[in-house]
Amino acid sequence: MKLIIAIIHDEDAPNSIEKLTNQGYRVTKLASTGGFLRGGNTTLMVGVEKEKVDAVIAIIKDTCKSRKEIASAPTPMMGNAGIFITYPIEVQVGGATIFVVDVDRFERA
Amino acid sequence: MKLIIAIIHDEDAPNSIEKLTNQGYRVTKLASTGGFLRGGNTTLMVGVEKEKVDAVIAIIKDTCKSRKEIASAPTPMMGNAGIFITYPIEVQVGGATIFVVDVDRFERA
Amino acid sequence: MKLIIAIIHDEDAPNSIEKLTNQGYRVTKLASTGGFLRGGNTTLMVGVEKEKVDAVIAIIKDTCKSRKEIASAPTPMMGNAGIFITYPIEVQVGGATIFVVDVDRFERA
Ligand code: NI
Ligand code: NI
Ligand code: NI
Repeated sequence: MKLIIAIIHDEDAPNSIEKLTNQGYRVTKLASTGGFLRGGNTTLMVGVEKEKVDAVIAIIKDTCKSRKEIASAPTPMMGNAGIFITYPIEVQVGGATIFVVDVDRFERA
Repeated sequence: MKLIIAIIHDEDAPNSIEKLTNQGYRVTKLASTGGFLRGGNTTLMVGVEKEKVDAVIAIIKDTCKSRKEIASAPTPMMGNAGIFITYPIEVQVGGATIFVVDVDRFERA
Repeated sequence: MKLIIAIIHDEDAPNSIEKLTNQGYRVTKLASTGGFLRGGNTTLMVGVEKEKVDAVIAIIKDTCKSRKEIASAPTPMMGNAGIFITYPIEVQVGGATIFVVDVDRFERA
């Protein structure tokens, strides 16, 4: 048994949890803040048999991978106070840090 | 030294924490949501010497075990709009998932 | 790779996180409550190479160590209802409990 502890971006959490749950994995979500990712983080805990670790990591990487997205940045127009033009800019989103820890003992009640 | 990570139901948390604390165990409570148990979950962390792991697990199982309880389900009465009869129904409550992890090193400050 | 899980006092968290971050460590902060420390607790998770464990523990101990501070306790003045004199009293603040756990596998996405 292994315990997978994944620190992901808040915005990726719903999709990641849904995909994991649909594949039959039981996910616990911890509220976390600050940390190495800008904005809010979520920590997921998933306990699985060691044969399933690769599959869980693949889902987390797929749903949370660091990627560039196009956002609209309003930019003030030169010489026209209060008038803004919107430019598309690339922003980095997502990203995950995943720790796998060995479980000595696993119990259900 | 072992670190016990237990995911329990919110409604069992106060009783479980009280019993653990009364037995001298130091419990840290993490807010957790979603996960494999319906409703809110709580994650407890308890660090103990390995000789105490059985005792801590016994307390958690005892206070959080999955069990049936009788709840009242209001049911609309046929042909009487707005009138409800309350039937007792069995609901499943509680349940715990417990991971025990080996601690390499333990420090206090 | 090691995962350091530190349970510290809320009031020490900003300073501890700042020092760790300034030294280049990536810190994840989990909200935690109750536990063995009075008042609110914060759980920090820091994943580091094993050579860095001592340095991280030193920063946490330094920023969170249990210590006495002088606080002002307002005390009602005898025979003068509603009039309070402030006495300095010593209070115990801070304190940390640190678990180091071995990481089987570490991944970034
Ligand atoms: Ni974000
Ligand atoms: Ni519930
Ligand atoms: Ni405090």
